[in-house]
Amino acid sequence: MSEPTPGSTGTLYLVPNTLDLGTPDSGADLQALLPLGVIRIAAGLQHWVAENAKSTRAFLKRVDAVVPLVLPLQSLCIVELPRAQKGAPLKGAAPNLPSAMAPQASLQPLLAPAQHGHDVGLISEAGLPAVADPGAALVQAAHGLGIRVMALPGASSLLLALAASGLNGQSFAFIGYLPVDAAERATRIRDLEALSRRQRQTQLMIETPYRNEALLGALVAHLQATTQLSVSCGLTLAGGFTRSDTVAAWRARATTMPGDVPAVFSLLAG
Amino acid sequence: MSEPTPGSTGTLYLVPNTLDLGTPDSGADLQALLPLGVIRIAAGLQHWVAENAKSTRAFLKRVDAVVPLVLPLQSLCIVELPRAQKGAPLKGAAPNLPSAMAPQASLQPLLAPAQHGHDVGLISEAGLPAVADPGAALVQAAHGLGIRVMALPGASSLLLALAASGLNGQSFAFIGYLPVDAAERATRIRDLEALSRRQRQTQLMIETPYRNEALLGALVAHLQATTQLSVSCGLTLAGGFTRSDTVAAWRARATTMPGDVPAVFSLLAG
Repeated sequence: MSEPTPGSTGTLYLVPNTLDLGTPDSGADLQALLPLGVIRIAAGLQHWVAENAKSTRAFLKRVDAVVPLVLPLQSLCIVELPRAQKGAPLKGAAPNLPSAMAPQASLQPLLAPAQHGHDVGLISEAGLPAVADPGAALVQAAHGLGIRVMALPGASSLLLALAASGLNGQSFAFIGYLPVDAAERATRIRDLEALSRRQRQTQLMIETPYRNEALLGALVAHLQATTQLSVSCGLTLAGGFTRSDTVAAWRARATTMPGDVPAVFSLLAG
Repeated sequence: MSEPTPGSTGTLYLVPNTLDLGTPDSGADLQALLPLGVIRIAAGLQHWVAENAKSTRAFLKRVDAVVPLVLPLQSLCIVELPRAQKGAPLKGAAPNLPSAMAPQASLQPLLAPAQHGHDVGLISEAGLPAVADPGAALVQAAHGLGIRVMALPGASSLLLALAASGLNGQSFAFIGYLPVDAAERATRIRDLEALSRRQRQTQLMIETPYRNEALLGALVAHLQATTQLSVSCGLTLAGGFTRSDTVAAWRARATTMPGDVPAVFSLLAG
């Protein structure tokens, strides 16, 4: 490799969390879901930046059950990302603003341990940090400071849903949330379908779980009959499923969506 | 969950391969890279559909070193995906055709074991099958036959690169390969930059490793100075790196790209 790692600075590790937050599965053996190599790295980190400190402590207890933590849990330094970084741009119906636009300077103190040679873990409540989740601004700040960034492998609900959909995996886009307003949402759905047809590109989106049913209803109502629609629900959980079918088939056979489990919706114009 | 699993049919498991194909790392302990739960499922599968049988046998030897295979390696049934399914649509410069457009009927025999109650593994040479890789048509065929599809967590170079880039992870698109012809490629780069600006969407692309250097050169030459450009190279490998910077900074400090290691390129218009 030609890129030298900086001399004495630590590495910012992007640590994938499991996808079972708040479910009965969340007590399961972490080894079933995360590579031992990732668990080992997590067990050795003293400094954490977290979307949520409480869920991070729960994660670290599961780590400790596999590989003992380098320090007792209460001695670890866990700092939460500033609120403005925590998904605010994600939840809105307006065009998504990249977290990268948030001021990075305020994040630099979170990276001070890395500047002093300690490795730092970045973790969100579920899945890979900085993807459909807060953290990108911290990663940008790390690059700006010459801190090595390393993303560790784990579950990403978006990619698992895409793979399981059978839709086009050679060209795809994740567009976040649709507008909540019914008329705006219908327009956006038709725009995405037109874009999908033009680019032959799978379009992926997510929704707050209690609106899963409403989003599915809107997709089935507004998409054309020949469009492929796939829904993945409760990925990596017992009882999780992926249904992938034409909109015509979805119309002919309803599927009830759970209102308390995250889902990923994918469409490809037929 | 509301979606019943079909009665007596097996499950099609999408098994993530490691990202170290053909590198010195490829002898490393599989537990460092894959969840034990995934290794256990892989060890129990007698029926495989593979992008490449040889690399699948190498993968299964690594599985066997952690969890003994249910049958001796030579007794497992490993069938390769038909050639037409194997990435041909991916390599072209033309608009990517979804594998889903390939005739699915010819793939149904590969799923006969699942119809008879056996679980089947689908695996590619690196990363998650059916994402930037062949397999989507088989997944579609499985859905058509009412076979349960389950994607297992592992490394996806695209998502790891996106997370490590610090670019917008709330809206992003993977567009595959750029045209090889220099003029067409320059046009496509400028189109992607305009799209990225309009949608505030990170654009991700890949290249055949020996063309990494040429693609980087073209991106640095044709993108605007304020555009963010990130390159991840050798993800999950010893010595892998992610560099994320403005195009102006890339121009000021060159990075030599290895010609034998996969890379992911991401851009976000500034």
